[in-house]
Amino acid sequence: MNICDIIFKTKRKNKLTESEIKWLIKGYVNGEIPDYQMSAWLMAVCFNSLTVEETLTLTEVMRDSGDILDLSNIHGITVDKHSTGGVGDKTSLIIAPICASCGIYVPKMSGRGLGFTGGTIDKLESIPGFQVDIDFEKYIDIINKNGAAIIAQSGHLVPADKKIYALRDVTATVDSIPLICSSIMSKKLATGADCILLDVKTGSGAFMKNTEDAQKLAELMVQVGQNAGKKCRAVITDMNEPLGNAVGNSLEVIEVCEILSGREKGRLYELCIVLAANMLELGGLGNTDNCIRLAEDAITSGRAMETFKKMIEAQGGNPKITEDYSLFKRALYKYELKADKNGYISAMDSEKIGMAALLTGAGRQNKNDKIDSSAGIILNKHVGDYVSQGDIILTLYSSVVQNFYEAANKASDAIEISGVVPKISPVVIQII
Amino acid sequence: MNICDIIFKTKRKNKLTESEIKWLIKGYVNGEIPDYQMSAWLMAVCFNSLTVEETLTLTEVMRDSGDILDLSNIHGITVDKHSTGGVGDKTSLIIAPICASCGIYVPKMSGRGLGFTGGTIDKLESIPGFQVDIDFEKYIDIINKNGAAIIAQSGHLVPADKKIYALRDVTATVDSIPLICSSIMSKKLATGADCILLDVKTGSGAFMKNTEDAQKLAELMVQVGQNAGKKCRAVITDMNEPLGNAVGNSLEVIEVCEILSGREKGRLYELCIVLAANMLELGGLGNTDNCIRLAEDAITSGRAMETFKKMIEAQGGNPKITEDYSLFKRALYKYELKADKNGYISAMDSEKIGMAALLTGAGRQNKNDKIDSSAGIILNKHVGDYVSQGDIILTLYSSVVQNFYEAANKASDAIEISGVVPKISPVVIQII
Repeated sequence: MNICDIIFKTKRKNKLTESEIKWLIKGYVNGEIPDYQMSAWLMAVCFNSLTVEETLTLTEVMRDSGDILDLSNIHGITVDKHSTGGVGDKTSLIIAPICASCGIYVPKMSGRGLGFTGGTIDKLESIPGFQVDIDFEKYIDIINKNGAAIIAQSGHLVPADKKIYALRDVTATVDSIPLICSSIMSKKLATGADCILLDVKTGSGAFMKNTEDAQKLAELMVQVGQNAGKKCRAVITDMNEPLGNAVGNSLEVIEVCEILSGREKGRLYELCIVLAANMLELGGLGNTDNCIRLAEDAITSGRAMETFKKMIEAQGGNPKITEDYSLFKRALYKYELKADKNGYISAMDSEKIGMAALLTGAGRQNKNDKIDSSAGIILNKHVGDYVSQGDIILTLYSSVVQNFYEAANKASDAIEISGVVPKISPVVIQII
Repeated sequence: MNICDIIFKTKRKNKLTESEIKWLIKGYVNGEIPDYQMSAWLMAVCFNSLTVEETLTLTEVMRDSGDILDLSNIHGITVDKHSTGGVGDKTSLIIAPICASCGIYVPKMSGRGLGFTGGTIDKLESIPGFQVDIDFEKYIDIINKNGAAIIAQSGHLVPADKKIYALRDVTATVDSIPLICSSIMSKKLATGADCILLDVKTGSGAFMKNTEDAQKLAELMVQVGQNAGKKCRAVITDMNEPLGNAVGNSLEVIEVCEILSGREKGRLYELCIVLAANMLELGGLGNTDNCIRLAEDAITSGRAMETFKKMIEAQGGNPKITEDYSLFKRALYKYELKADKNGYISAMDSEKIGMAALLTGAGRQNKNDKIDSSAGIILNKHVGDYVSQGDIILTLYSSVVQNFYEAANKASDAIEISGVVPKISPVVIQII
């Protein structure tokens, strides 16, 4: 086989065979195919896409490039969940204890954040003492005991994705539906759960800027998962405004506690119930209505919060933080962004607010940047709220006072105030 | 500036600014932009093309990446010619002496062949003693004395093209009209002639498989040349069958002598007259009819042949080869390919005959392969000729007897014999 012939085939929209895809990915992972040929192929994929069959093969070849976890020692059905990435998205921390407290098992390996989206692992690390690097046996033990564990991805999982993603990131080839699908699904298939729920975000703060693309990605991922023998479902959700009231690591864990305690309702609560119910349904706990009731009851009964505390304790964290928020590191300074006129908030651009949070110190611009767990933004208002001039819309937290100037500018850019009542998009758009 | 932003712009068909193109090319040449980012950009260009303005800038930035030759010491108007590459294309060796003998100056730097197309320099090197590596002062002296010199491209000319072309060659990004244009024209602009004639080939043995693409490329190159202050014209010519009777280095030089002596007419002669006449017209020697008469007269009077002999002598070659072909190295073996049925020759695929010639030893598969100057193919018949079963169509020459099997198979593949008289395309399709 010849790499130029393979690039030409994709460039001319001719379908690659299974053995060509295997040869391409293996050759790239073992260094026989150099970056400059792979990036030309990736760009050709961005333009011409891949067929479903090619995407299935690509995903499975990528999965098989490293270890595949064996979860057979877990005492019941396992359900994993993946979000395509959002601003203020702390749903994993909420739905894992909900589902675990209802009797299904949630083995979750998460990543760190880069750019304007946060990472679940960074959020957990804002809890004093919390350990995310847990060995595999202990991971299985915790899941068997508490029903859920969330740890950092470790070991030799999908090296093909690590190498390909790093190249896509620096060659403007991230935005391709089959490449996004194979990247996500190869990891989900390698981490071994029986069922997978996919939360596909759409809107300004998501990879998929419109619902049509989100549908295509969701359908493709469900097809790939099912083809690989998994129970699989996708929920398309709105990411035009940040999810919930908090963006930033400890601020988001505090919001998780507010949701699990039953004190906070609204869009984030609503989304968590739908996601958890779909996971419970995949896990075989009855029909949708029943699973929604189960999920709601897990919160009102306090069971989900109890499970969350056990999860924190099992991974070395201090469970008292769920009741005493002063145990979190606090930012030294805050800055209040106020309305410059009367009107309805008609837009709160997720990506811009994510960028503003990053500037406060809550995120990483480069892989090796250090995160300030106390930094971030509280959304005092949401899209649809009426504000009078001088009302506080956002509160920015940082321990570096100079950060506020640029961050506040960026955040201010994200906000639109209008004379007319805006249309509010539902948080759950479609279930596939 | 950021390389990903630039790749994204081209990917989204947004126009790059002059400073972005400068930054991109300079960064690539000096090694700050790695191959894998350049190849992603090149692939995006293959899909989305570039605007005329972007191509103008790209070509000029590439030209300015190295030395620009100063031909002001030549005693008159200089006219260069470039062909986009063909099989059996020895026109440079014919038209340079024709034009020089009519009073214009032809400074020509040529390349070596790679793959199925031959290189002018390789053809000249089949002449015993002929030197292609001539220093610049001597090059100018020879041109002033004889009106023409053909030497190997040397020195620090357009390093940007060398580096970009090498990358395109291994990333399936050769076939892009603005990239082909900038590659050719940056070199033509750097080699300094006042006027440039472009011979754009179309057909099976050419980069441009159809006339529409050839027109686009020709128009773009003329525009780029004129914008850079050159007199510029393009001729679109047929490359569905090889040009003339010979493919292979010494075989082609012998055919050059047959044309210059006035003994051979036909498609090759016709094309050379048109190309030479257009060069004379660019050089200010009157209207088309007049220039055609001048070119024809250069051959019938023997003036062009006299100039060719002087050119050979000036570069160390033996001018007697023009009269005594036994002075060329001869191939040890020949193989005659015969018609397997009666009928009209309806196709002689240039690319396949070029590949067959390469297999006899006449060309290079890899850059460092050695060429056998005596190897190649004589076309005993042409498209449109009637053949009876057993008639010789092609004669293959090689000094390695094992070469014939594969070469003859490839050549046989190139030939089609049909019961009906085929339509013959004209050798000169259009002048732009």
